[in-house]
Amino acid sequence: MNEKKDILLPEPTLRRLPWYLAYVNMLQSQGIEYVSSTQISKEINVDASQIAKDLSFLNIKGKTRIGYQVVSLAAELSNFLGFHQEHSALMIGVGSLGAALIQDSGLNQYGLKIVAGFDINEKIIGSEICGVPVYDIAELAVQQKRYKADIGILAVPVEHAQESADLLSESGVKAIWNFTPFRIRVSDDVVIQNTSIYAHLAVMYNRINAKK
Amino acid sequence: MNEKKDILLPEPTLRRLPWYLAYVNMLQSQGIEYVSSTQISKEINVDASQIAKDLSFLNIKGKTRIGYQVVSLAAELSNFLGFHQEHSALMIGVGSLGAALIQDSGLNQYGLKIVAGFDINEKIIGSEICGVPVYDIAELAVQQKRYKADIGILAVPVEHAQESADLLSESGVKAIWNFTPFRIRVSDDVVIQNTSIYAHLAVMYNRINAKK
Repeated sequence: MNEKKDILLPEPTLRRLPWYLAYVNMLQSQGIEYVSSTQISKEINVDASQIAKDLSFLNIKGKTRIGYQVVSLAAELSNFLGFHQEHSALMIGVGSLGAALIQDSGLNQYGLKIVAGFDINEKIIGSEICGVPVYDIAELAVQQKRYKADIGILAVPVEHAQESADLLSESGVKAIWNFTPFRIRVSDDVVIQNTSIYAHLAVMYNRINAKK
Repeated sequence: MNEKKDILLPEPTLRRLPWYLAYVNMLQSQGIEYVSSTQISKEINVDASQIAKDLSFLNIKGKTRIGYQVVSLAAELSNFLGFHQEHSALMIGVGSLGAALIQDSGLNQYGLKIVAGFDINEKIIGSEICGVPVYDIAELAVQQKRYKADIGILAVPVEHAQESADLLSESGVKAIWNFTPFRIRVSDDVVIQNTSIYAHLAVMYNRINAKK
């Protein structure tokens, strides 16, 4: 039933699906049973036709006049997005941001399990953060043979971003989640997702200044 | 000299500028003195003409054949992006992600200072995280009169996202940095920046599955 998960979806669709999930989760918490794409459209500010198209990728059908069953839609969206499945990850760079992400249990709820951290700082190598062991980055290849993690998370200073990405790539991870603002390059068989939270500050600061 | 900071820049430009900054910061740490837009282009995978256009918003000129002075370009980019200026922020929702963000000193380096946290959980109200006091959300308006923070950061469960955004909006913040996957709506005079890190997982999971 889940073969549709293996279809390569357009990124805009993949970015919208979690919005719908967030909204139907809210409806679910309010005990609401059914929702139409028109209702979702009003709330989320996306065309109803676009929503119907996005949801057509899922194994779910809305009923005429009634819409989608909220519980089923939430479960199907979450399952489709892979949030119900466990994906193991290595954290590269256990500084301020890396340590914060290890402590964020929200990632667990979205199917990401950080199994090990790696750093060059001798003060934290050998320690544990929330039960996650921190190893010397030199041990990455050896440890990855044991952990076989799918994902490497990059939270190192920019000057180490590319070399860390190369190490991860060689260790055989399938994807790199890059939290640095550095544009890392790896071979085509490694998926890259960039999430530079600090870069978002730049947009916000500019918008604030421009409104003054 | 900084009046250009008040120009409303296109969002794609604002998202690229931190990439250039990350790269020139790396060059700076390697002791390199000059860089051309062609070199940046090769490294970052953005057209050299686009880079020259993006950098034309800044108070900096490259020299023919030599390019930009690395130290000046780094300083000018960082200053232009507002990373040298302090922006105060309130954290709404001091759960797992909110607490993690408060502990991330990286935000400080990019000009963001979280001055207070707000939550509904009585177990943490009255406590401090890294010196940041946590108040009852009911005190938001009163405390904001004192703090006069520019930015409200939303890290609440989705079902509380809109009401929290409304509270922030009424309290007079200029911008809301939304870490929830919920599409909040506020009046046009409030800047919204969405950073849904969990939604990025959906894109990564799909790409991994599609490659199997």
